[in-house]
Amino acid sequence: MLDKIYRVNMTTMDFSIEEAPAEWMGLGGRGLTSTIVAAEVDPECHPLGPNNKLVFAPGMLSGTSAANSGRNSCGAKSPLTGGIKESNVGGTSAAIMAKLGVKALIIEGMPKEGAPFYHLHITKEKVEFFPVPELVGKNNYEVLDYMLEKYHKKVAVMSIGTPGEMRMNLANISVKDPGGKLRSHGRGGMGAVMGSKKVKCITVDAESYNEITLANPEKFKEASKIFTKTLQENPISGQGLPAFGTNVLVNILNEAGGLPTRNFREGRWEFAENICGETMAENIKARGGKTTHGCHAGCVIQCSQIYNDADGNYLTSGFEYETIWAFGSNAGIQDLDQIAKIDALMDDLGVDSIETGVTLGIAVDAGIVNYGDGEKIYDLIKNDIAKGTPLGRILGGGTHLVGKLYGLVRVPTVKGQGMPAYEPRAVKGQGVTYATSTMGADHTAGYAVATNILNSGGYVDPLKKEGQIILSRNLQIATAAVDSTGMCIFVAFPLLDDPKSLTALVDMINARFGTSLTGDDVTNLGMKILKTERAFNLKAGLTPSDDRLPEFMKYESLPPHNVVWDFTNEELDSFWDF
Amino acid sequence: MLDKIYRVNMTTMDFSIEEAPAEWMGLGGRGLTSTIVAAEVDPECHPLGPNNKLVFAPGMLSGTSAANSGRNSCGAKSPLTGGIKESNVGGTSAAIMAKLGVKALIIEGMPKEGAPFYHLHITKEKVEFFPVPELVGKNNYEVLDYMLEKYHKKVAVMSIGTPGEMRMNLANISVKDPGGKLRSHGRGGMGAVMGSKKVKCITVDAESYNEITLANPEKFKEASKIFTKTLQENPISGQGLPAFGTNVLVNILNEAGGLPTRNFREGRWEFAENICGETMAENIKARGGKTTHGCHAGCVIQCSQIYNDADGNYLTSGFEYETIWAFGSNAGIQDLDQIAKIDALMDDLGVDSIETGVTLGIAVDAGIVNYGDGEKIYDLIKNDIAKGTPLGRILGGGTHLVGKLYGLVRVPTVKGQGMPAYEPRAVKGQGVTYATSTMGADHTAGYAVATNILNSGGYVDPLKKEGQIILSRNLQIATAAVDSTGMCIFVAFPLLDDPKSLTALVDMINARFGTSLTGDDVTNLGMKILKTERAFNLKAGLTPSDDRLPEFMKYESLPPHNVVWDFTNEELDSFWDF
Repeated sequence: MLDKIYRVNMTTMDFSIEEAPAEWMGLGGRGLTSTIVAAEVDPECHPLGPNNKLVFAPGMLSGTSAANSGRNSCGAKSPLTGGIKESNVGGTSAAIMAKLGVKALIIEGMPKEGAPFYHLHITKEKVEFFPVPELVGKNNYEVLDYMLEKYHKKVAVMSIGTPGEMRMNLANISVKDPGGKLRSHGRGGMGAVMGSKKVKCITVDAESYNEITLANPEKFKEASKIFTKTLQENPISGQGLPAFGTNVLVNILNEAGGLPTRNFREGRWEFAENICGETMAENIKARGGKTTHGCHAGCVIQCSQIYNDADGNYLTSGFEYETIWAFGSNAGIQDLDQIAKIDALMDDLGVDSIETGVTLGIAVDAGIVNYGDGEKIYDLIKNDIAKGTPLGRILGGGTHLVGKLYGLVRVPTVKGQGMPAYEPRAVKGQGVTYATSTMGADHTAGYAVATNILNSGGYVDPLKKEGQIILSRNLQIATAAVDSTGMCIFVAFPLLDDPKSLTALVDMINARFGTSLTGDDVTNLGMKILKTERAFNLKAGLTPSDDRLPEFMKYESLPPHNVVWDFTNEELDSFWDF
Repeated sequence: MLDKIYRVNMTTMDFSIEEAPAEWMGLGGRGLTSTIVAAEVDPECHPLGPNNKLVFAPGMLSGTSAANSGRNSCGAKSPLTGGIKESNVGGTSAAIMAKLGVKALIIEGMPKEGAPFYHLHITKEKVEFFPVPELVGKNNYEVLDYMLEKYHKKVAVMSIGTPGEMRMNLANISVKDPGGKLRSHGRGGMGAVMGSKKVKCITVDAESYNEITLANPEKFKEASKIFTKTLQENPISGQGLPAFGTNVLVNILNEAGGLPTRNFREGRWEFAENICGETMAENIKARGGKTTHGCHAGCVIQCSQIYNDADGNYLTSGFEYETIWAFGSNAGIQDLDQIAKIDALMDDLGVDSIETGVTLGIAVDAGIVNYGDGEKIYDLIKNDIAKGTPLGRILGGGTHLVGKLYGLVRVPTVKGQGMPAYEPRAVKGQGVTYATSTMGADHTAGYAVATNILNSGGYVDPLKKEGQIILSRNLQIATAAVDSTGMCIFVAFPLLDDPKSLTALVDMINARFGTSLTGDDVTNLGMKILKTERAFNLKAGLTPSDDRLPEFMKYESLPPHNVVWDFTNEELDSFWDF
């Protein structure tokens, strides 16, 4: 059975299920979404207009038993960055889509003004369109419960909350988590694109799917075993992440002077202890939560968790370092439980927790909220953003637009996207990734923190320029390929340190498809994806001058190391010399 | 006496008065501001940061007795467009600066956070810095009165209101009018740049200045006489404009189907009669206003006016077609007096009336206000924009940002700047100017309405593509040169129709400076200015994909002619083939 391209047209309310063209056959995940967007979307189109397309594609290995292969990619022209966007997620959708034979789902067109919101139901044979006036104004938890009941839980669910309906830049697309509640296609306003097409919710039938047919099951099993072992034996993916979740990074970055604090004014926070991974793990253990939880079936890292409140009641899950940082040292909240409540609220509304947190960090500079006022921040999200008050619209536009509206100069964004939890002046390899990534400031696009701070894949001094361009380039190329497999970003740790890991990954792909790819082919795939994305961005009107960090980082020195961002334009532009 | 470059540094609170470098000698107005900005401002800098510069330069003929030569140019990197900006104004400042020997005033640097606002006083020998805490939160009329009293009226005054203090994109820089109250460097957020540098107000000494020394006074007098005659004999500059002001255009554009109505949904408005120039002239006559008024000493067109209310009390002056259009057919206000009240309010606050009106047009689509609700619109400007409430911040960001925050697709901007009063689908030459101008959507940059609608300089069918690129190109080149002389844009009408007019203009320049320029030199100057501006914009990150009209105009047909915007990207890009 060959996987199919499902195409839904929201102008004509029609669908088609087609064979994939030959040139898309070997692609999945980010490689496929970016290829489709680049091939079919006019780079100059309005991202919320009828000519943008929203594309979902499970990874090449999604649906198989390969460890950590359950990530689904979502792509479009981004209303936040004005460029191409890929945002991938764990949860249940990748495996279900892959098993149903959906290689990609392309949503195109746009209904007329005043059209209702729709629920799309994807089955093997067809796409059903249901107007859902009853779900308008509802948020994700309610939509999820509604759909799980309607389909007796045999379904993947992707949905948007009210911010997506209002086409806010903060809006993400939520996906059902295997055990907790939700995961998110977080960044780049993909929820706004879905909202613009008047799609409130997509469900994918999980009853009629088949198991994936492997070209070489024996070889697959063998490679998979090796791959899993490399994940488990790596000290970061095998120990650090399972024990403390991604939040293990608070203390590490604070120690390194690279924990952005007070809207990127300092690199170290005096209250880091209150929100760090160790504190979080203690709370979880004391309150009967779960320190290890996989974001998708088949995950062996289990960096997610279930976080309960002081009374032992469920508070949130998928409680990540970047979220905790954004509301912690950046916006000043010292109470981890308060941040957990905000995290759960953001899941429900469907807003990107990084962009929201960075926005609330700059909102302090705008005079909208005081540093550390967690109650007020909760209230702004619940009663302003979710309801689209004027202040909610301002915050819903994200960091870059708050900066524009309040005439601020210290705006930590690249290509309009808020900068995540790693201070680029003090973790310079990460700064190169923020500057040059086709995605805007995106920590996952080339996680140089690994080699700058975690000594994974060698060591490059985080405070010096030397070696950072090539480090970020190699990581971005590898990541683009990994994002195509359906693997989570953390497989990078063994991939960087253990040659057996890459071999096993390539072997699994070959065993899945009957191909004979080499490691070089994977590298070439990564390069091709980056170049495809870059070409789209250039046609969309982005230029090398968008491959820059904010100007203030060049003249404002960051404590405690008192470092500035000192790359020349020429050095940054040399990133693309490959 | 050679004219000097006055340089004010707001970081160090210091100034210098220097000889102009040789390459700036033959320049004035836009030619000089754009040359200085391009030479001294990093195109990638933050427009509201310490590395932007705000430059004022009177025109080459400003301060002389040449008719209509009293325009002052202001330039900077624009926070609205992200590109270079020149915005020129009538009023008293150009002549006073020129006579004092100020060839250009360059304001650079930026005080530390928390610094007070300053008043700068420019005299022949020095620049004085006065902190003015007492003027913070005050608007232009009050600042103007304060300064006129302080200097016994012997002074030019440039100031910003509260929107400028708040660094809003709408903020302009106001200049004392010779008879009415204020004129404005309207477009591109120049007031925000001034606010970012903590300059509330600039005064220029008008006591110690000298009359301009002419190289050849006799030749000047002779050429000036001819030039004035061509202005007076032209039917538009000699009759139409004096009789009805610029607002003569309401009926003309409505008739042509090119009067943008309901946020650019239609090209004709059923209530045009209520707000047209003829109605306005009747009101003025009946109420004891003044139909003819010059915006600067030496104006022979006198297209400005004093508009009184029904009781005969002063309401506003400098009441332009583009303002009346923006709040009239575009935002729906049918009552001319209501628009006049809004106009006076906007002068006081110091906001660009075009950008504000276009923003309120799209605010209807955003659900912020109902079409035609003049009371509410007045209130939004007075109590939200002026006070910087959240809703005021949204509107203060201008059309483009309202579109972003509300996820709207029908956003009539180019390069982020709101589109003035001429529907580009129905006046296609004007559309080419909007698309390609280095300034964003700017009607004055190349006023193809002249040849598309007013039969000035020949006739090019406004509904067809043929001939529009070359028409707009020639007009933009001529305008860039005219903007350097200190002449107002309306000298274009005789320049287009009467060869004597251009000869006389060139003769005046030669007689002023002792040069021997030809008409070709003037054309070459215009081309050089455009290319300098374009090069800055490209380095700032703008690209050919910014030389486009909004996508919706390509697929949405405009009544009554049912025309779309049908230029290809290649055709638009060919604009720059010179």
